[in-house]
Order: sequence, then structure tokens, then C-alpha cells
Amino acid sequence: MGVFIGRDKEVRRAFGYDEVAIVPGSVTIDPEDVDISLELCGFKFDIPFIASAMDGVVDPKMAVALGELNGLGVLNLDGIYTRYENPYEQIKKIIDPKVKNVTEVLQKIYKEPVKERLIYERIREIKKNKVVCAVSSIPQNATRNIKIAKDAGADIFVVQATVVTVNHQSSRYENINLEKLCKYSGLPVIVGNCVTYNVALQLMEIGASAVLVGVGPGAACTTRQVLGIGVPQVTATVDCSKARDYYFKKTGRYVPIITDGGMITGGDICKSFVSGADAVMFGTGFAKAKESPGKGYHWGMAMPHFYLPRGTRINVGTTGSLKEILLGPAKTDDGTQNLVGALKTCMGNVGAKNIRELQLAQLIIAPEIKSEGKTYQLAQRVGMGK
Amino acid sequence: MGVFIGRDKEVRRAFGYDEVAIVPGSVTIDPEDVDISLELCGFKFDIPFIASAMDGVVDPKMAVALGELNGLGVLNLDGIYTRYENPYEQIKKIIDPKVKNVTEVLQKIYKEPVKERLIYERIREIKKNKVVCAVSSIPQNATRNIKIAKDAGADIFVVQATVVTVNHQSSRYENINLEKLCKYSGLPVIVGNCVTYNVALQLMEIGASAVLVGVGPGAACTTRQVLGIGVPQVTATVDCSKARDYYFKKTGRYVPIITDGGMITGGDICKSFVSGADAVMFGTGFAKAKESPGKGYHWGMAMPHFYLPRGTRINVGTTGSLKEILLGPAKTDDGTQNLVGALKTCMGNVGAKNIRELQLAQLIIAPEIKSEGKTYQLAQRVGMGK
Amino acid sequence: MGVFIGRDKEVRRAFGYDEVAIVPGSVTIDPEDVDISLELCGFKFDIPFIASAMDGVVDPKMAVALGELNGLGVLNLDGIYTRYENPYEQIKKIIDPKVKNVTEVLQKIYKEPVKERLIYERIREIKKNKVVCAVSSIPQNATRNIKIAKDAGADIFVVQATVVTVNHQSSRYENINLEKLCKYSGLPVIVGNCVTYNVALQLMEIGASAVLVGVGPGAACTTRQVLGIGVPQVTATVDCSKARDYYFKKTGRYVPIITDGGMITGGDICKSFVSGADAVMFGTGFAKAKESPGKGYHWGMAMPHFYLPRGTRINVGTTGSLKEILLGPAKTDDGTQNLVGALKTCMGNVGAKNIRELQLAQLIIAPEIKSEGKTYQLAQRVGMGK
Amino acid sequence: MGVFIGRDKEVRRAFGYDEVAIVPGSVTIDPEDVDISLELCGFKFDIPFIASAMDGVVDPKMAVALGELNGLGVLNLDGIYTRYENPYEQIKKIIDPKVKNVTEVLQKIYKEPVKERLIYERIREIKKNKVVCAVSSIPQNATRNIKIAKDAGADIFVVQATVVTVNHQSSRYENINLEKLCKYSGLPVIVGNCVTYNVALQLMEIGASAVLVGVGPGAACTTRQVLGIGVPQVTATVDCSKARDYYFKKTGRYVPIITDGGMITGGDICKSFVSGADAVMFGTGFAKAKESPGKGYHWGMAMPHFYLPRGTRINVGTTGSLKEILLGPAKTDDGTQNLVGALKTCMGNVGAKNIRELQLAQLIIAPEIKSEGKTYQLAQRVGMGK
Repeated sequence: MGVFIGRDKEVRRAFGYDEVAIVPGSVTIDPEDVDISLELCGFKFDIPFIASAMDGVVDPKMAVALGELNGLGVLNLDGIYTRYENPYEQIKKIIDPKVKNVTEVLQKIYKEPVKERLIYERIREIKKNKVVCAVSSIPQNATRNIKIAKDAGADIFVVQATVVTVNHQSSRYENINLEKLCKYSGLPVIVGNCVTYNVALQLMEIGASAVLVGVGPGAACTTRQVLGIGVPQVTATVDCSKARDYYFKKTGRYVPIITDGGMITGGDICKSFVSGADAVMFGTGFAKAKESPGKGYHWGMAMPHFYLPRGTRINVGTTGSLKEILLGPAKTDDGTQNLVGALKTCMGNVGAKNIRELQLAQLIIAPEIKSEGKTYQLAQRVGMGK
Repeated sequence: MGVFIGRDKEVRRAFGYDEVAIVPGSVTIDPEDVDISLELCGFKFDIPFIASAMDGVVDPKMAVALGELNGLGVLNLDGIYTRYENPYEQIKKIIDPKVKNVTEVLQKIYKEPVKERLIYERIREIKKNKVVCAVSSIPQNATRNIKIAKDAGADIFVVQATVVTVNHQSSRYENINLEKLCKYSGLPVIVGNCVTYNVALQLMEIGASAVLVGVGPGAACTTRQVLGIGVPQVTATVDCSKARDYYFKKTGRYVPIITDGGMITGGDICKSFVSGADAVMFGTGFAKAKESPGKGYHWGMAMPHFYLPRGTRINVGTTGSLKEILLGPAKTDDGTQNLVGALKTCMGNVGAKNIRELQLAQLIIAPEIKSEGKTYQLAQRVGMGK
Repeated sequence: MGVFIGRDKEVRRAFGYDEVAIVPGSVTIDPEDVDISLELCGFKFDIPFIASAMDGVVDPKMAVALGELNGLGVLNLDGIYTRYENPYEQIKKIIDPKVKNVTEVLQKIYKEPVKERLIYERIREIKKNKVVCAVSSIPQNATRNIKIAKDAGADIFVVQATVVTVNHQSSRYENINLEKLCKYSGLPVIVGNCVTYNVALQLMEIGASAVLVGVGPGAACTTRQVLGIGVPQVTATVDCSKARDYYFKKTGRYVPIITDGGMITGGDICKSFVSGADAVMFGTGFAKAKESPGKGYHWGMAMPHFYLPRGTRINVGTTGSLKEILLGPAKTDDGTQNLVGALKTCMGNVGAKNIRELQLAQLIIAPEIKSEGKTYQLAQRVGMGK
Repeated sequence: MGVFIGRDKEVRRAFGYDEVAIVPGSVTIDPEDVDISLELCGFKFDIPFIASAMDGVVDPKMAVALGELNGLGVLNLDGIYTRYENPYEQIKKIIDPKVKNVTEVLQKIYKEPVKERLIYERIREIKKNKVVCAVSSIPQNATRNIKIAKDAGADIFVVQATVVTVNHQSSRYENINLEKLCKYSGLPVIVGNCVTYNVALQLMEIGASAVLVGVGPGAACTTRQVLGIGVPQVTATVDCSKARDYYFKKTGRYVPIITDGGMITGGDICKSFVSGADAVMFGTGFAKAKESPGKGYHWGMAMPHFYLPRGTRINVGTTGSLKEILLGPAKTDDGTQNLVGALKTCMGNVGAKNIRELQLAQLIIAPEIKSEGKTYQLAQRVGMGK
């Protein structure tokens, strides 16, 4: 299965979105007849896309707007909204196109401490609109944050770091007990990110309600450059979804896999599902919505890191309303609008009635197409960093 | 035969034009001695190239001009020529270089309903010039359109959608019965597009007179970007031509394979035949002809789609007359003129007396040549989208 | 050995210069101690590099200048020097940077018929300087040209076309009998181009004194783009050199392999030898010499073709004297000067005392290095076409 | 294990930094708990990064500055500092952005002979600051230089050439006896560069204290372009580290492998260790330090070569202090600052407590990721040559 990269050293080949394509089916279905709904943490969502817990993408208003479309946005509890009474003042400084070293600006803004009161209030802002409320925390703050989140009425808790395992070792501090958090906190807990079969399985075994998959693929993430670490998303998703299938066979509990990061177009999203995902989480696509707090900008949550920032600020521009981006009609032909329509049309073309059938569609390795569309797409990827 | 893209997930590697090259033969033939004629739907054509049913490429005049060279152009019955008395007024709006969101302009123009009378008249315009007349329709309109087409005297009917199968399911509408259409409409029917052995074989079994191969490779197509769906043309053509050979062996009926889309140069066209095609269909090459209605512009037929446009407008410029492009002499060295001469010279160099022998020539995987010529070609592909 | 590009269709993977690198040896040698001499057609040359028979590269003066360094340049007998009394007047028109469609200019200039008297005189111009004189001809004119060449005192005759086989078929004309030409013309005959084991072996069997290898790789060649035909040079050279080794084992006659085209840098030249070549032929490197008739420009010999031009005009600029380019010292670090020094240093680093030992050095597939040097090289390849 | 690049010719595939990524572990560790120290030639270093013996990177002051952070810089004994009383006057000429042919300027400056007195004095300048002093020499001058170096109090001697073997042959001069130098000079000797298992093993067997690995990968090196020679760093490091492991098992002596060249980011450095390196040597990263003598410029040490220059001048700019670059905090997110922090964070994420455990982490082949971060990185590589 592997390739020798040197004497006696065999390693696996991993694949990303640009290298695969979906093969049309032998049966096709009317896109109006397909079911794309997602069951997650006891809730049912019409749209299986989740907005990333990035400060440029999800504020309480965006979480509500998404909830009203019966989708889901995750609010970052360690970010700008819980540090500042008036977060928009700070966002203005971050998205100022004249700013030169954004990293330093972010490092300064994110030095302000988080206020427990604001955690509570931000969650209340969402819940008073009667939508499902999901919030996220880094592992270090999870024990404190989950208590406040529960009190404030949050529905789903996400524990997220660049790399999460059930076995973290430190001589300096006592590590968070993820199993306790998942099993006894009283809230369903989604955990990530991971990219391997083993870690995904272990997270399921300690009680995660869903698993986030993806290390290093995101557009606003520089983990692979800074640390050398990363696994392309198609392979990571395939591997972790195999852990889900094994765990489901063994226990009867189905733990959804959420592919997180690296998707730019509807095509990438469709490929995630065919790779085995139950839901997808992304920032770029939502950052383009008029409702997005970053006004077309977003930045990696590891970017304000004081010691070793690993992220970048990206300006994707504002291209339409949240509704247009999700439900269309699309006014562009580049695969960034009507993402729900794209998913349904793809399912129609491969003959998949629901997401689980879509996971069984056929992929092909097809890295070398340089059609116009492809060029467009790559141009956009490159251009986004400017 | 496959590659593992993740745990227990083996997929095939597919190939496109840029990745293969043709190996010269051990025998060579005078290009003047080769036979490139095509038998299709009972007609014999001198030139095995078919102009795509795109509104920027084929209008009734172009269909006639091609027919007079004993080639074939397909008129789109769902497009601008059957919606407007004066289609050229609308084309002018589309090809205006100052227009910014062409997608929206197209969506508006294509909202105008099709007129049955115009379908009839456009076909008559072609037939009164005594050339073979081929017309195309999307599956939804095929039953109505084929009747008018037959009445008006059309010779060949094409049923075409991004992805076609013999088994389409819908709860909203009764699906077209492709078998009935192929067997009892009284016109030979070409069906497509497909990319797999199984679907190609099924289309032959229900009576298709020829099969169109290609999903997602065209220059004016963004299917792979929007939906993630697509199979590179060399592999798609090899696979579908194997279905043709199997079906021919089994039944004695030879159903030509027409590779549709993604070809830019004479080299690409030659590679299609070596991959197994009996004929090739393309838009870009014809769009460069002076006779082309789009005046150097063309656009994907899925681009005006109201809900999920999947196409793009491309300006390839006008580079010569239809005759120069097809029969030369070429005035450029970039492989876009004298396409017939290129095919014949290629056949001479591989020692193939006719297209069926050319299908037996040898390919080689050769993705990494970066000679000057290659750079040219890629530059052009990239530049075309501007 | 192959890769499946579709159902039941297995093809080989071929490799070009950019994809391989040479592995240093376990022994190293002082570059001053290596022997790079070439035995060809009974002559011994100090420099195993041959200047291509291109009108922008070799005129009689260049042939003499090369001969005086004990290298070899081939004069094209079907080109501008045998068509015009004053060829430099015509070259001036071709290399005019203001000219827009160079192809048309060339087509016109090369319509002037060849004069037998000029063939004779050009050869005399070279021979009166007492250097080895090599001349080339396309197969159609070879029978006439070789007689004049012999009379005029030429030493080596080259029969060259894009693709040559021993078995060419035509209903229009009687084909040249290559075997007769090789065995009974009284001049040693070098034949090409070919890229396969079988054709190389057949050319040796009919008496070729050396075989030219290369279809489609040259910088001024667009064969792959126009016709789809081409085999990357490393694979073509490996294959044909295996035919040489087999033929030598069988007959005791050693027929040198000359790799022709596609080399830009000293590194590419070194890789040709490690792939199995006994000599290399190129245009680009020589076109950069002050002594070159094209003054930094050269063009493919298939470019003036009236019916289907397959070549391009390239401006590589003038970067130094012939001596500097071949023997150094180099004033640049980009691998385009002191090509002899580069070959000797490479041989020292792999521990090869002569060319035959260099053919036994080790290659490695190394396509993905993107070091600064590599970037330079690619930039130059791309830029050359401007 | 190999790939056929032609008939009966099987070669290995080699891999570089851009083609692999590191897979996160099943256990993670607090980065504060990892040990990155290096034992080399009897000394213990806190930082396992060595500054290359390039005149634009290491002068005596830089060597001291690095030593004070308990890292190591190597002073080139054949360079500008031992040729000129006032080297900075000459450096000024080299880094003048208006200079056009830097190669010629360098060739002239490096014609000035080396002064033995200056060798002695430069070493004293370093030693009087009580830091470990490492100096380098080309093999031709090693016998003379090591004596002076020892007298002056140097601690580590490096013998370095593009390609080094234990078996160099020349008819002109008596070759250096590397074994004698390693065993009887009284100084620990690091030898390189090599890229193969066999040569690395032979260097260990003759007594090298450490082995430098890398031919052709450096940013300021054009060996692969000029000579065609080079092996991508990941494969070279894997192979040579296997020789180390074999030699250690056989003899009990552990000879560190130092990967030299081609690293741009922290990610590349981390990948070197996972490939098997004990230490890494690079120029680009250090050239960006304020303390660097080249003020943001550096150049290949084979660039001033009179006969065949193989190097280039690169301007990477000055981006921070040596301390910021090595120890952070980083002010950028591009992987070029806080390289120690990056290494520690990587080790934390793969669960490696020390460098030897990091060598056991898992790599994956992941060449096709085109995330924003990746694009950044490539852009930078390309741009650096300007």
C-alpha cells in the first residue's frame, strides 16, 4: 500500500481535494428527491454544513442567522467576543487593509483576557432566538467553559485544538479529562481535530458525540508550513470514517465525522461526503456572506498565538447573502454559491438518495485536469492570500 | 489496478490529455493515403469532428458551412435560436466585453421561452441547404423536440445532458423513456454524456446510434468545480470504447463513441482517437472560426441555469476561417489550425490507415514535458478564461 | 511495468529531464582526468556535442568554428543557405522582433526553391577550412543531396525527419531506400529521428552509422502540441541505447546514439549521457553563441511547413562566445555556459572515466525539487517563448 | 521498489520536503517537556540547528552570537574572511543590489589568496568569546587548515565539498587522506556532503565525527541545474540515517547525521528530523537575522568558482534578530520565525520526547495540497531568487 521514500522506509500516499473527482453513477435521481439532512448530537439539521468557530466567520448574529436556516454555526468561546464588550471595534482594526503585520495586531488584541460574564451573555444572545447553540473551546479552558455554557443554555459543546488526542502528557499542568467531559458534563461534546483512524476511534470510545477531522488543510491555516504537520483531507476523512464504521458495527452508536477545513468550492464539499463525511465544517465559504462579522475577511484561530502563530488573514470578499451562498440561486459559475444546490445536484448525478448513500459513491484520482474551470479555481486559491 | 486513497479504499487513477502522448509507429504512411472518414447514423462524413451544440458555436449558418465541408455541427434546440426571432441581438449582449457578471446576463436572456415555431424554422434553414442536419435537446424536452425535428426534416437527433443514464428517478415527473425515443422515434438518436463502461453499454443496449463521452472536461464547463464530478477524457474514452468493442462483438452493431469536450489542440484531438474515439466533438476550436456566431466567444450550455449555473464564458478570439481551421494551410504553429492535416499527419507517423487503426496506436504517460510548445499550450489554457 | 489508463489499457510511463537527477558515485575522479571524446562515423571528436541542423544555429561559418574546436555542427541542405545566395538578408527578416506572425514570414521565405549549386558551394565553404563537414537532408531529397554532398567533399550525411522508420508507405511516390543510402552511397549516414527500441534497432540493421533520438522534446518544436506525438527524452534515450547494446552484442558493431533536442542546461546534457547517449545534439545552447547566424534566435525546421507548421521561433539571446559556452570559464551560474566543464565535473562526481562509464551512472526520479536553481531553470524555459 | 524509466532500467523515486508531511501522533506532549538538545563532537548544544559555512551567513561575530545561544555556526576558512583584512568592504560590493553579473564580481573577489595569518586570527576572534568554534575547509586545503585551526584553538573541523567520497582519484595531485585527518588530526572532523547509504557508511568507517547530507537541494545552490546531480533531501536523509543506525548497531558508535540545505520553513526542518536527521544545517533561515553579515543576502560557496560557478546570490531580506528567528516569539505566521518553538510544538503534536523519538514519527506523502499556506511558501521560494 505504501511507497518507499528511502531505504527500508515505506510511507503512505495521501490525497487532497484537487487530486480526486467524483464518478457519475449508473442511476441518476431528481435532485429534488434527495435528503441531505444531518443528525448531530440529538438535533436534526436541514443543512449539513457547519460554520467554523472563527471570529471572522461566526458571531452571535451569524449563529442565529444560520440557525434560522436550520444550519449550524459554532461560536468561539476563547475569542474576541468573550474578550471584548464591543468586539466589532477590534475586528475593524484586524480587517483594516492598510495594516501591515496583521499577526502582531492580532497578538495584541488577543492578549485581553476572556470574561466569564461575556461567555454567558454571548450564549444567551444566541439562545433567546430559539436556535440550536453550539460553542467551542480549546482543551485548556474546556472544563470552565462547559459549565458556563451549560448554565447559559448552550446545546452543543465543541472541544477543539490543532491536534487532539485522548492521551496528552504534561509535567506542568494536569491535563483535561476528555472522557469525563464527554460523559458527565451533561452536554453533547464534539471533539477534534484528528486525522487518523486510531485517534478517531479513541475519541469515539471516550464518548465524543462527533469527531472533527482535519489538521493543516484550511485556507487560513499554516500548520503544515510552520510545523510540517498535516494530512490531506480526502485521506484523513476516509480513514476517520472507517473508524466510525468500525465503531458503529461494534457498538451500534453512530458517531458523525465532520470534515473541517480546506474546502473552497461546492465540488470540494461534495468530495468530502464521498470520502465518508457526515457533515462538513468550513470558514471560507461562510466568510463570503454579507452576514459574516469579518466583512469578507477571516483569520486562523492559531494566528493570534503569542509564541508561535500558525494562521493567516485572508480576504475572500463579500459575494452574497448567507441564503444565496447556501441555497442559491447562484449568480456565479465558480462553485461558491448555492452550495446546497450543488450538493443535491451532485447526489442526483451519482444516484444517492441521502448522505449515507453519497458516502458510497465512487471517486477517481484525477489530478491533472487543467480545464478552464480548474484554472479558475486554482487562481482563486492563490489569489485569496493577497 | 487502483491506488489506496485511505484505509481500505482503493480507487482508480484517471488520465487527461496533458498526461499522455502518442508513440510514433514502426511503420509510417504518407498522410495523403490515410482515410479519416466517419460513418455516423447512416451518413458518411469526410471530417470526423463535430461542432458542439453551444449557442456561441453553432447557428444555422455555421451548421450549413460545416455541412458543406462534409463535417457536422449540432444545433441546440433549447438555446437562443429557438427562443428569439433575432438571436444575434441577444448574442451581442452576451459577448459584450464590458459586461461584468455574464452569468446574470445569461440567466436573464435564457428565461425567454422556447417557441416551437422557431424550432421548426431553424431546422428548415439548415435543410434547405441540403446538408445533414443534427439537432440537440435536453432530456426533459426531447419527446416534444424530436417530433418537431422529424417533421422539419432533421437527420440526427442528439439527447444531451451533463450526466445521462438509462435509469433516472424522480417523484415529481415522469422521466423520458430513452429506449422508446431511440427505437421508435424514426430518427437516429445520439445520447450522452456518460463516462463509464456500464452506462455506455446500457445506452448502446437501448438503441443509441452513438454515445457522447465526457463529463466535466470542457473549457467552458465548471462541473468539476461546482459539483466535484468529472472524469478525465482519456480514461473516459478508453472505458466507453471498450464497451463499444464488447457490444460490437456481442451484437455485430458498431456504435460510434464521440469524445466531447476538453480538446484545445490538434494533439488533444489525435489523443482522443488513440484513446478509442470514432469522432470528436468540441466547441473551442470551432469558436475560433470567422463563421462562428459568438465571434470568438462561447459559453457553457449549463451556464444560464437559473438555480445552479455551471459554465463560463470564454473568449478564444477569431483566428481564421472554418476552412483554415479544419483544412489549413495553418498560419500558426500552435496546433489550432489545419486540424484535419494534424490528424492525417499523426496517422502517417503512427502508421494508421484509418481511424480504427489509429485507435490501436500506442500511448505513453508523459506528464512532465515542459518544452516550449507545452508552455505555450498551458499559457493558452489559462489565458482563455480572461 | 505499466499503468492502467482505462479498462484493460496498460501503458508505460515515460520520463523527461525535469523528472530525474543523477546520483553522486561512491568514487570520485579529478575532472581533468576524464575522457569525453566521441567516435562517430570514423572521426574522433573532442566534444561530444553536435549543433542541430537548424538555420538559426548552423551556417557554414558556425560549422567551421565548431570544427576548429573539434566539435561538430550539421548544415541543413534543405534550408535557407541552399535557397538563397544571400541567406543573411532573409534571416534578418525572420529575426526582426517586430514581426508578428513569424510562421507566415517563414512559409514565404522557404518557398524559394533549393539550388543544387548552392548545396555544393556551402559544403565547399566548410571543407576549405579542413574541418569535418556534416550535412543533413530530409528523406525526400536525400538521394539527390547525398550525391552532391559526396562530390563536394562532405564527410557525414544526416537523413532527418520528425519521425523516420525503415518502412514508409506511399501510393504517390516511391519511398527512399534508406538501406541502399546507408550501405552504398559511399558516405557514413546518420539517421533519425526515432524514439523506440524497435525502430532504433531496425535503423542499425540497415546500416545507419548513428541514430538520432528524439520526437517532440525540442524547445523550438511543437510536435507534441500539434500532433499529440512525443516521447520524453530520458525514456527515449534509455530505450534506444538498449537497442544499441543489443545490436553491439549481436554484431560487434557499435552504433552511437545521439540524443537530439530538449536540453537547456548542462544538467540536461549530463542526464542524456547517463540515460545512455553517446553524443547529444541541441540547438538552444549553440543559438546563444555570438557566432550563431540567428543572433540569439532560432526556429524549428518544421516551422516553415506550408501545410502544417510545427515549430516556433525562440529568442534565447546571445550570452557569450562559442568557446565560452562550450569550454568556459562560465560567467553565469545557470548551467548554460562551460558545458564541457559541466560534463567533466559531473563525470568526476559520479566517478566515470569516460562516456561509456557515465552511461552506467545511477539516476533517481526526483521530480518535485523546487529549489531556487530549479525555479530559475523553469522560469527560463517559460520565458524563452516570449 | 523502483520505477522503470525505460526498457530494463529501473530507478528509485526520491522525495523532497514539498512532497511529504508529518502525521500527528496518537499521544501528544506538552512542548515544554521535550528535549531538543544535540550531542556533537563531544559538545552538547541546546539548539540542533547549525548555520552553514557561507560567507553571507557566518562571520566570527555571527559564530559568537550563535554560540552564546548554545547553537553552532561554522566559519568558512576558504572564504572572504581569510582572504581580506576587511571583508565587509568586499561584502558591500557583493550585496549591492545594482550589481548585474554577481557571478563575475564574486569570481574577482575570491581570486585574492587566503592568508594563513587571517585563518588564525578569525578563529581567535571566536574563541576569545568562550564559545564552541567550528570551522570548515574544502578537501584540497584541509591538511593545512586543520593544523592552523588546531593551533588557534578551534573545536570542530568540517571538511566539505559538493560531493565527498573516501575514494577520490587524480593523476595530477595526491588526494587528501580523509581517514588520517579524521583519526590523527586531534580535532573531531565532520565530513560531507554525501547522499547515499554507502558513502555515509564509508565516512563513518574512516572516523568522521558526523556526516553532512545533501547534494543540490540548497536555495543558493545550482548543482542540479549545472551538473544534473542531486538527490532530494528527504530520501537522502532517510538513506544516510539508515547507515548511521547500521553502523551504530555494529560498532556502538553513534555518528550524527546533519541534513544540510534546502530547508526554508520550520516545517521543512521538522521533516528533516522525522526523516532521520540528528541536526540540521541551513543558510537561508540564518541569513534573515539582523546579525547576519550578508544583511539579508547570501550566496553559494561554489558560486565564485572561476571555471564552473554553481551557486546563486539570494536576497531573503532581514526579518528579525537571531533570537527571534530561533526562539521567538514569532511575529509572522509563515514558518520562518521561532524555529525552536516550531520544532518543540511539532514534537509535542507527534508525541516525541526527544530527537530520537521524533525520528520515529510517521511521514505521509502529500504532494498536492494547495492550501493558502502552501501557496505562500511556494511564492516565497520563487520570489527569493529575484
